[in-house]
Amino acid sequence: MITVNTKSSSKPKADTKTALLQAGLDIMAEKGYSNTGIQEVLGSLSIPKGSFYHYFDSKEDFALHIIRHVDEMRSACLQKTLSNTAQTPLQRLRTAADNEKNNFLTGECRKGCLIGNLSQEMSDQSEALRLELSACMNKRRDMIADCVAEAQNLGEISKEFTALEYADMYESGWSGAVMRAKTAKTIESLEIFIDLMFSHFLKP
Amino acid sequence: MITVNTKSSSKPKADTKTALLQAGLDIMAEKGYSNTGIQEVLGSLSIPKGSFYHYFDSKEDFALHIIRHVDEMRSACLQKTLSNTAQTPLQRLRTAADNEKNNFLTGECRKGCLIGNLSQEMSDQSEALRLELSACMNKRRDMIADCVAEAQNLGEISKEFTALEYADMYESGWSGAVMRAKTAKTIESLEIFIDLMFSHFLKP
Repeated sequence: MITVNTKSSSKPKADTKTALLQAGLDIMAEKGYSNTGIQEVLGSLSIPKGSFYHYFDSKEDFALHIIRHVDEMRSACLQKTLSNTAQTPLQRLRTAADNEKNNFLTGECRKGCLIGNLSQEMSDQSEALRLELSACMNKRRDMIADCVAEAQNLGEISKEFTALEYADMYESGWSGAVMRAKTAKTIESLEIFIDLMFSHFLKP
Repeated sequence: MITVNTKSSSKPKADTKTALLQAGLDIMAEKGYSNTGIQEVLGSLSIPKGSFYHYFDSKEDFALHIIRHVDEMRSACLQKTLSNTAQTPLQRLRTAADNEKNNFLTGECRKGCLIGNLSQEMSDQSEALRLELSACMNKRRDMIADCVAEAQNLGEISKEFTALEYADMYESGWSGAVMRAKTAKTIESLEIFIDLMFSHFLKP
Protein backbone atom coordinates (compact mmCIF):
# COMPACT_ATOMS: atom_id res chain seq x y z
CA MET A 1 0.00 0.00 0.00
CA ILE A 2 1.32 3.45 -0.92
CA THR A 3 1.29 6.15 1.75
CA VAL A 4 0.24 9.47 0.25
CA ASN A 5 2.92 12.07 0.87
CA THR A 6 1.85 15.64 0.26
CA LYS A 7 5.38 16.96 -0.23
CA SER A 8 5.43 18.44 -3.74
CA SER A 9 8.06 17.62 -6.34
CA SER A 10 10.55 20.28 -7.39
CA LYS A 11 10.33 19.02 -11.00
CA PRO A 12 7.88 20.53 -13.51
CA LYS A 13 4.60 18.56 -13.57
CA ALA A 14 4.81 17.38 -17.17
CA ASP A 15 8.27 15.98 -16.50
CA THR A 16 7.11 14.19 -13.36
CA LYS A 17 4.22 12.50 -15.11
CA THR A 18 6.36 11.53 -18.10
CA ALA A 19 9.09 10.22 -15.79
CA LEU A 20 6.55 8.09 -13.92
CA LEU A 21 5.13 6.74 -17.19
CA GLN A 22 8.57 5.95 -18.58
CA ALA A 23 9.76 4.26 -15.37
CA GLY A 24 6.49 2.31 -15.17
CA LEU A 25 6.86 1.27 -18.79
CA ASP A 26 10.46 0.08 -18.30
CA ILE A 27 9.52 -2.09 -15.33
CA MET A 28 6.11 -3.28 -16.56
CA ALA A 29 7.38 -4.29 -20.03
CA GLU A 30 9.87 -6.64 -18.39
CA LYS A 31 7.99 -7.83 -15.29
CA GLY A 32 4.33 -7.62 -16.29
CA TYR A 33 1.47 -5.84 -14.54
CA SER A 34 1.08 -7.97 -11.42
CA ASN A 35 4.80 -8.07 -10.71
CA THR A 36 5.21 -4.31 -10.95
CA GLY A 37 4.93 -2.47 -7.66
CA ILE A 38 4.24 1.25 -7.47
CA GLN A 39 6.87 1.45 -4.72
CA GLU A 40 9.42 0.01 -7.15
CA VAL A 41 8.51 2.60 -9.80
CA LEU A 42 8.82 5.44 -7.26
CA GLY A 43 12.02 3.96 -5.88
CA SER A 44 13.65 4.26 -9.30
CA LEU A 45 12.95 8.03 -9.36
CA SER A 46 13.45 10.88 -6.92
CA ILE A 47 9.76 11.67 -6.95
CA PRO A 48 7.69 11.81 -3.73
CA LYS A 49 5.01 9.19 -3.25
CA GLY A 50 2.18 11.71 -3.20
CA SER A 51 2.88 12.66 -6.80
CA PHE A 52 1.71 9.28 -8.00
CA TYR A 53 -1.86 9.75 -6.79
CA HIS A 54 -1.84 13.31 -8.08
CA TYR A 55 -1.56 11.90 -11.61
CA PHE A 56 -3.13 8.45 -11.39
CA ASP A 57 -6.18 7.12 -9.53
CA SER A 58 -4.87 3.57 -9.13
CA LYS A 59 -2.39 1.05 -10.49
CA GLU A 60 -4.92 0.14 -13.20
CA ASP A 61 -5.25 3.81 -14.18
CA PHE A 62 -1.43 4.08 -14.25
CA ALA A 63 -1.28 1.07 -16.60
CA LEU A 64 -3.92 2.64 -18.87
CA HIS A 65 -1.79 5.78 -19.14
CA ILE A 66 1.34 3.70 -19.81
CA ILE A 67 -0.48 1.82 -22.60
CA ARG A 68 -1.54 5.13 -24.20
CA HIS A 69 2.02 6.47 -23.80
CA VAL A 70 3.46 3.40 -25.57
CA ASP A 71 0.78 3.56 -28.23
CA GLU A 72 1.54 7.22 -29.00
CA MET A 73 5.29 6.57 -29.27
CA ARG A 74 5.03 3.46 -31.42
CA SER A 75 2.28 4.92 -33.64
CA ALA A 76 4.37 8.05 -34.33
CA CYS A 77 7.40 5.90 -35.14
CA LEU A 78 5.44 3.55 -37.41
CA GLN A 79 3.60 6.42 -39.11
CA LYS A 80 6.91 8.12 -39.92
CA THR A 81 8.14 4.98 -41.68
CA LEU A 82 4.83 4.19 -43.42
CA SER A 83 4.46 7.71 -44.81
CA ASN A 84 7.96 7.93 -46.26
CA THR A 85 7.22 8.53 -49.93
CA ALA A 86 10.87 7.97 -50.85
CA GLN A 87 9.96 4.27 -50.66
CA THR A 88 7.13 2.28 -52.22
CA PRO A 89 4.37 1.16 -49.81
CA LEU A 90 5.69 -2.42 -49.74
CA GLN A 91 9.24 -1.19 -49.11
CA ARG A 92 7.93 0.91 -46.20
CA LEU A 93 6.30 -2.12 -44.60
CA ARG A 94 9.57 -4.00 -44.92
CA THR A 95 11.52 -1.10 -43.42
CA ALA A 96 9.10 -0.97 -40.47
CA ALA A 97 9.58 -4.70 -39.82
CA ASP A 98 13.38 -4.45 -40.09
CA ASN A 99 13.44 -1.44 -37.73
CA GLU A 100 11.38 -3.27 -35.12
CA LYS A 101 13.53 -6.39 -35.44
CA ASN A 102 16.66 -4.30 -34.90
CA ASN A 103 15.12 -2.55 -31.88
CA PHE A 104 14.28 -5.92 -30.36
CA LEU A 105 17.85 -7.11 -30.94
CA THR A 106 19.26 -3.92 -29.42
CA GLY A 107 17.10 -4.63 -26.35
CA GLU A 108 18.73 -8.09 -26.07
CA CYS A 109 15.46 -9.91 -26.89
CA ARG A 110 13.91 -8.79 -23.60
CA LYS A 111 10.61 -7.06 -22.84
CA GLY A 112 9.06 -7.48 -26.29
CA CYS A 113 5.90 -5.46 -26.82
CA LEU A 114 4.16 -4.09 -23.71
CA ILE A 115 0.80 -4.16 -25.51
CA GLY A 116 1.22 -7.86 -26.32
CA ASN A 117 2.57 -8.72 -22.87
CA LEU A 118 -0.26 -7.04 -20.99
CA SER A 119 -2.89 -8.41 -23.36
CA GLN A 120 -1.87 -11.97 -22.52
CA GLU A 121 -1.67 -11.28 -18.80
CA MET A 122 -4.61 -8.93 -18.25
CA SER A 123 -7.29 -9.47 -20.93
CA ASP A 124 -9.26 -11.78 -18.65
CA GLN A 125 -8.51 -9.73 -15.52
CA SER A 126 -9.38 -6.12 -16.32
CA GLU A 127 -12.04 -5.06 -18.81
CA ALA A 128 -10.66 -1.49 -18.82
CA LEU A 129 -7.16 -2.69 -19.76
CA ARG A 130 -8.53 -5.18 -22.29
CA LEU A 131 -10.53 -2.51 -24.13
CA GLU A 132 -7.55 -0.14 -24.25
CA LEU A 133 -5.19 -2.90 -25.45
CA SER A 134 -7.68 -4.03 -28.09
CA ALA A 135 -8.07 -0.44 -29.35
CA CYS A 136 -4.25 -0.11 -29.64
CA MET A 137 -4.03 -3.38 -31.57
CA ASN A 138 -6.76 -2.28 -33.98
CA LYS A 139 -5.15 1.12 -34.46
CA ARG A 140 -1.82 -0.43 -35.44
CA ARG A 141 -3.52 -3.00 -37.71
CA ASP A 142 -5.40 -0.17 -39.45
CA MET A 143 -2.18 1.80 -40.05
CA ILE A 144 -0.65 -1.27 -41.68
CA ALA A 145 -3.85 -1.90 -43.64
CA ASP A 146 -3.69 1.64 -45.08
CA CYS A 147 -0.17 0.95 -46.36
CA VAL A 148 -1.18 -2.48 -47.71
CA ALA A 149 -4.08 -0.81 -49.57
CA GLU A 150 -1.62 1.66 -51.13
CA ALA A 151 0.59 -1.27 -52.17
CA GLN A 152 -2.42 -3.09 -53.63
CA ASN A 153 -3.38 -0.03 -55.67
CA LEU A 154 0.15 0.08 -57.10
CA GLY A 155 0.08 -3.65 -57.87
CA GLU A 156 2.75 -4.54 -55.29
CA ILE A 157 0.39 -6.80 -53.30
CA SER A 158 -2.39 -9.04 -54.62
CA LYS A 159 -6.03 -8.07 -54.12
CA GLU A 160 -6.96 -11.69 -53.37
CA PHE A 161 -7.70 -10.58 -49.80
CA THR A 162 -8.66 -7.21 -48.37
CA ALA A 163 -5.99 -4.89 -46.98
CA LEU A 164 -7.52 -5.38 -43.52
CA GLU A 165 -7.21 -9.16 -43.78
CA TYR A 166 -3.56 -8.97 -44.87
CA ALA A 167 -2.86 -6.51 -42.07
CA ASP A 168 -4.59 -8.66 -39.45
CA MET A 169 -2.60 -11.70 -40.53
CA TYR A 170 0.59 -9.62 -40.56
CA GLU A 171 -0.04 -8.40 -37.02
CA SER A 172 -0.81 -11.90 -35.76
CA GLY A 173 2.41 -13.20 -37.27
CA TRP A 174 4.53 -10.33 -36.03
CA SER A 175 3.23 -10.35 -32.47
CA GLY A 176 3.57 -14.13 -32.26
CA ALA A 177 7.11 -13.94 -33.63
CA VAL A 178 8.01 -11.34 -30.97
CA MET A 179 6.58 -13.62 -28.28
CA ARG A 180 8.57 -16.58 -29.56
CA ALA A 181 11.76 -14.53 -29.91
CA LYS A 182 11.39 -13.21 -26.37
CA THR A 183 11.08 -16.78 -25.12
CA ALA A 184 13.90 -18.24 -27.24
CA LYS A 185 16.14 -15.18 -26.72
CA THR A 186 17.07 -15.21 -30.40
CA ILE A 187 15.58 -13.23 -33.31
CA GLU A 188 15.26 -16.34 -35.48
CA SER A 189 11.44 -16.30 -35.51
CA LEU A 190 11.44 -12.60 -36.47
CA GLU A 191 13.83 -13.26 -39.35
CA ILE A 192 11.78 -16.21 -40.60
CA PHE A 193 8.58 -14.16 -40.36
CA ILE A 194 10.07 -11.25 -42.32
CA ASP A 195 11.64 -13.55 -44.91
CA LEU A 196 8.50 -15.57 -45.63
CA MET A 197 6.12 -12.62 -45.33
CA PHE A 198 7.94 -10.43 -47.83
CA SER A 199 9.25 -13.01 -50.26
CA HIS A 200 6.24 -15.31 -50.35
CA PHE A 201 3.13 -13.73 -48.89
CA LEU A 202 2.95 -10.00 -49.61
CA LYS A 203 3.40 -10.03 -53.37
CA PRO A 204 1.36 -9.42 -56.54
CA MET B 1 2.87 -18.01 2.90
CA ILE B 2 1.67 -21.61 3.01
CA THR B 3 1.67 -23.40 6.37
CA VAL B 4 2.77 -26.99 5.94
CA ASN B 5 0.08 -29.28 7.27
CA THR B 6 1.15 -32.88 7.78
CA LYS B 7 -2.39 -34.29 7.67
CA SER B 8 -2.40 -36.72 4.75
CA SER B 9 -4.99 -36.69 1.99
CA SER B 10 -7.45 -39.56 1.73
CA LYS B 11 -7.19 -39.41 -2.08
CA PRO B 12 -4.70 -41.59 -3.97
CA LYS B 13 -1.43 -39.72 -4.59
CA ALA B 14 -1.60 -39.67 -8.38
CA ASP B 15 -5.07 -38.15 -8.21
CA THR B 16 -3.96 -35.50 -5.73
CA LYS B 17 -1.05 -34.39 -7.88
CA THR B 18 -3.17 -34.36 -11.04
CA ALA B 19 -5.92 -32.43 -9.26
CA LEU B 20 -3.38 -29.84 -8.09
CA LEU B 21 -1.96 -29.52 -11.61
CA GLN B 22 -5.39 -29.19 -13.20
CA ALA B 23 -6.58 -26.63 -10.65
CA GLY B 24 -3.32 -24.68 -11.02
CA LEU B 25 -3.67 -24.80 -14.80
CA ASP B 26 -7.26 -23.52 -14.72
CA ILE B 27 -6.34 -20.56 -12.53
CA MET B 28 -2.92 -19.78 -14.03
CA ALA B 29 -4.19 -19.86 -17.64
CA GLU B 30 -6.67 -17.13 -16.82
CA LYS B 31 -4.83 -15.06 -14.22
CA GLY B 32 -1.16 -15.55 -15.06
CA TYR B 33 1.70 -16.72 -12.85
CA SER B 34 2.06 -13.75 -10.52
CA ASN B 35 -1.67 -13.44 -9.88
CA THR B 36 -2.07 -17.12 -8.98
CA GLY B 37 -1.81 -17.89 -5.28
CA ILE B 38 -1.13 -21.38 -3.99
CA GLN B 39 -3.78 -20.75 -1.33
CA GLU B 40 -6.31 -20.10 -4.10
CA VAL B 41 -5.39 -23.37 -5.83
CA LEU B 42 -5.71 -25.31 -2.56
CA GLY B 43 -8.92 -23.50 -1.72
CA SER B 44 -10.53 -24.81 -4.90
CA LEU B 45 -9.82 -28.42 -3.80
CA SER B 46 -10.34 -30.40 -0.63
CA ILE B 47 -6.64 -31.16 -0.38
CA PRO B 48 -4.60 -30.33 2.74
CA LYS B 49 -1.94 -27.67 2.42
CA GLY B 50 0.90 -30.05 3.25
CA SER B 51 0.23 -32.05 0.11
CA PHE B 52 1.40 -29.18 -2.06
CA TYR B 53 4.97 -29.26 -0.74
CA HIS B 54 4.95 -33.04 -0.91
CA TYR B 55 4.70 -32.77 -4.67
CA PHE B 56 6.27 -29.39 -5.49
CA ASP B 57 9.30 -27.56 -4.12
CA SER B 58 7.98 -24.08 -4.81
CA LYS B 59 5.52 -22.08 -6.89
CA GLU B 60 8.07 -22.02 -9.72
CA ASP B 61 8.42 -25.81 -9.54
CA PHE B 62 4.59 -26.09 -9.56
CA ALA B 63 4.47 -23.93 -12.70
CA LEU B 64 7.12 -26.10 -14.38
CA HIS B 65 4.99 -29.18 -13.71
CA ILE B 66 1.86 -27.41 -15.00
CA ILE B 67 3.70 -26.44 -18.20
CA ARG B 68 4.77 -30.08 -18.72
CA HIS B 69 1.21 -31.26 -17.97
CA VAL B 70 -0.21 -28.85 -20.59
CA ASP B 71 2.49 -29.81 -23.06
CA GLU B 72 1.73 -33.53 -22.69
CA MET B 73 -2.01 -32.99 -23.17
CA ARG B 74 -1.76 -30.68 -26.15
CA SER B 75 1.01 -32.73 -27.81
CA ALA B 76 -1.06 -35.91 -27.55
CA CYS B 77 -4.09 -34.12 -28.99
CA LEU B 78 -2.10 -32.57 -31.85
CA GLN B 79 -0.25 -35.81 -32.61
CA LYS B 80 -3.54 -37.68 -32.89
CA THR B 81 -4.77 -35.22 -35.53
CA LEU B 82 -1.45 -34.99 -37.39
CA SER B 83 -1.06 -38.76 -37.65
CA ASN B 84 -4.57 -39.42 -39.00
CA THR B 85 -3.77 -41.08 -42.31
CA ALA B 86 -7.43 -40.83 -43.38
CA GLN B 87 -6.52 -37.25 -44.31
CA THR B 88 -3.66 -35.82 -46.39
CA PRO B 89 -0.92 -34.01 -44.38
CA LEU B 90 -2.25 -30.58 -45.43
CA GLN B 91 -5.81 -31.57 -44.47
CA ARG B 92 -4.51 -32.70 -41.07
CA LEU B 93 -2.90 -29.31 -40.44
CA ARG B 94 -6.15 -27.62 -41.34
CA THR B 95 -8.13 -29.94 -39.05
CA ALA B 96 -5.74 -29.19 -36.17
CA ALA B 97 -6.22 -25.44 -36.69
CA ASP B 98 -10.02 -25.76 -36.90
CA ASN B 99 -10.10 -27.91 -33.75
CA GLU B 100 -8.06 -25.37 -31.79
CA LYS B 101 -10.19 -22.50 -33.05
CA ASN B 102 -13.34 -24.34 -31.93
CA ASN B 103 -11.85 -25.09 -28.50
CA PHE B 104 -11.00 -21.42 -28.06
CA LEU B 105 -14.54 -20.45 -29.02
CA THR B 106 -15.97 -23.04 -26.61
CA GLY B 107 -13.86 -21.45 -23.88
CA GLU B 108 -15.47 -18.07 -24.67
CA CYS B 109 -12.20 -16.57 -25.97
CA ARG B 110 -10.68 -16.65 -22.48
CA LYS B 111 -7.39 -18.07 -21.19
CA GLY B 112 -5.81 -18.71 -24.60
CA CYS B 113 -2.64 -20.78 -24.47
CA LEU B 114 -0.92 -21.16 -21.09
CA ILE B 115 2.46 -21.62 -22.81
CA GLY B 116 2.04 -18.34 -24.68
CA ASN B 117 0.66 -16.48 -21.68
CA LEU B 118 3.48 -17.51 -19.36
CA SER B 119 6.12 -16.93 -22.01
CA GLN B 120 5.10 -13.25 -22.28
CA GLU B 121 4.88 -12.82 -18.52
CA MET B 122 7.81 -14.89 -17.27
CA SER B 123 10.51 -15.16 -19.97
CA ASP B 124 12.45 -12.26 -18.47
CA GLN B 125 11.69 -13.29 -14.86
CA SER B 126 12.56 -16.97 -14.54
CA GLU B 127 15.24 -18.73 -16.58
CA ALA B 128 13.86 -22.14 -15.52
CA LEU B 129 10.37 -21.29 -16.81
CA ARG B 130 11.76 -19.66 -19.96
CA LEU B 131 13.77 -22.76 -20.90
CA GLU B 132 10.78 -25.07 -20.32
CA LEU B 133 8.44 -22.80 -22.32
CA SER B 134 10.94 -22.51 -25.15
CA ALA B 135 11.34 -26.31 -25.28
CA CYS B 136 7.54 -26.71 -25.48
CA MET B 137 7.34 -24.18 -28.29
CA ASN B 138 10.08 -25.95 -30.24
CA LYS B 139 8.46 -29.34 -29.69
CA ARG B 140 5.14 -28.16 -31.12
CA ARG B 141 6.86 -26.39 -34.04
CA ASP B 142 8.76 -29.61 -34.83
CA MET B 143 5.54 -31.67 -34.84
CA ILE B 144 4.03 -29.25 -37.33
CA ALA B 145 7.25 -29.23 -39.37
CA ASP B 146 7.10 -33.04 -39.67
CA CYS B 147 3.59 -32.77 -41.12
CA VAL B 148 4.62 -29.90 -43.43
CA ALA B 149 7.52 -32.06 -44.69
CA GLU B 150 5.09 -34.89 -45.45
CA ALA B 151 2.89 -32.40 -47.33
CA GLN B 152 5.91 -31.11 -49.25
CA ASN B 153 6.88 -34.63 -50.27
CA LEU B 154 3.36 -35.17 -51.62
CA GLY B 155 3.45 -31.84 -53.49
CA GLU B 156 0.76 -30.22 -51.32
CA ILE B 157 3.11 -27.48 -50.09
CA SER B 158 5.89 -25.73 -52.00
CA LYS B 159 9.53 -26.49 -51.20
CA GLU B 160 10.47 -22.82 -51.57
CA PHE B 161 11.17 -22.79 -47.82
CA THR B 162 12.13 -25.58 -45.43
CA ALA B 163 9.44 -27.37 -43.43
CA LEU B 164 10.91 -25.86 -40.26
CA GLU B 165 10.62 -22.33 -41.66
CA TYR B 166 6.99 -22.85 -42.67
CA ALA B 167 6.25 -24.36 -39.25
CA ASP B 168 7.96 -21.51 -37.40
CA MET B 169 5.99 -18.94 -39.38
CA TYR B 170 2.80 -20.94 -38.80
CA GLU B 171 3.39 -21.05 -35.06
CA SER B 172 4.16 -17.32 -34.89
CA GLY B 173 0.95 -16.54 -36.76
CA TRP B 174 -1.17 -18.92 -34.74
CA SER B 175 0.08 -17.82 -31.32
CA GLY B 176 -0.25 -14.16 -32.27
CA ALA B 177 -3.78 -14.75 -33.55
CA VAL B 178 -4.72 -16.42 -30.25
CA MET B 179 -3.30 -13.44 -28.35
CA ARG B 180 -5.26 -10.99 -30.49
CA ALA B 181 -8.46 -13.07 -30.23
CA LYS B 182 -8.12 -13.27 -26.44
CA THR B 183 -7.82 -9.48 -26.33
CA ALA B 184 -10.62 -8.74 -28.81
CA LYS B 185 -12.86 -11.51 -27.40
CA THR B 186 -13.75 -12.58 -30.93
CA ILE B 187 -12.25 -15.33 -33.10
CA GLU B 188 -11.91 -13.03 -36.12
CA SER B 189 -8.09 -13.07 -36.09
CA LEU B 190 -8.07 -16.89 -35.88
CA GLU B 191 -10.45 -17.13 -38.86
CA ILE B 192 -8.38 -14.69 -40.94
CA PHE B 193 -5.19 -16.56 -40.05
CA ILE B 194 -6.67 -19.94 -41.05
CA ASP B 195 -8.21 -18.54 -44.22
CA LEU B 196 -5.05 -16.81 -45.49
CA MET B 197 -2.68 -19.54 -44.31
CA PHE B 198 -4.49 -22.38 -46.04
CA SER B 199 -5.78 -20.65 -49.15
CA HIS B 200 -2.75 -18.48 -49.90
CA PHE B 201 0.33 -19.55 -48.00
CA LEU B 202 0.52 -23.31 -47.55
CA LYS B 203 0.09 -24.41 -51.16
CA PRO B 204 2.17 -25.94 -53.98
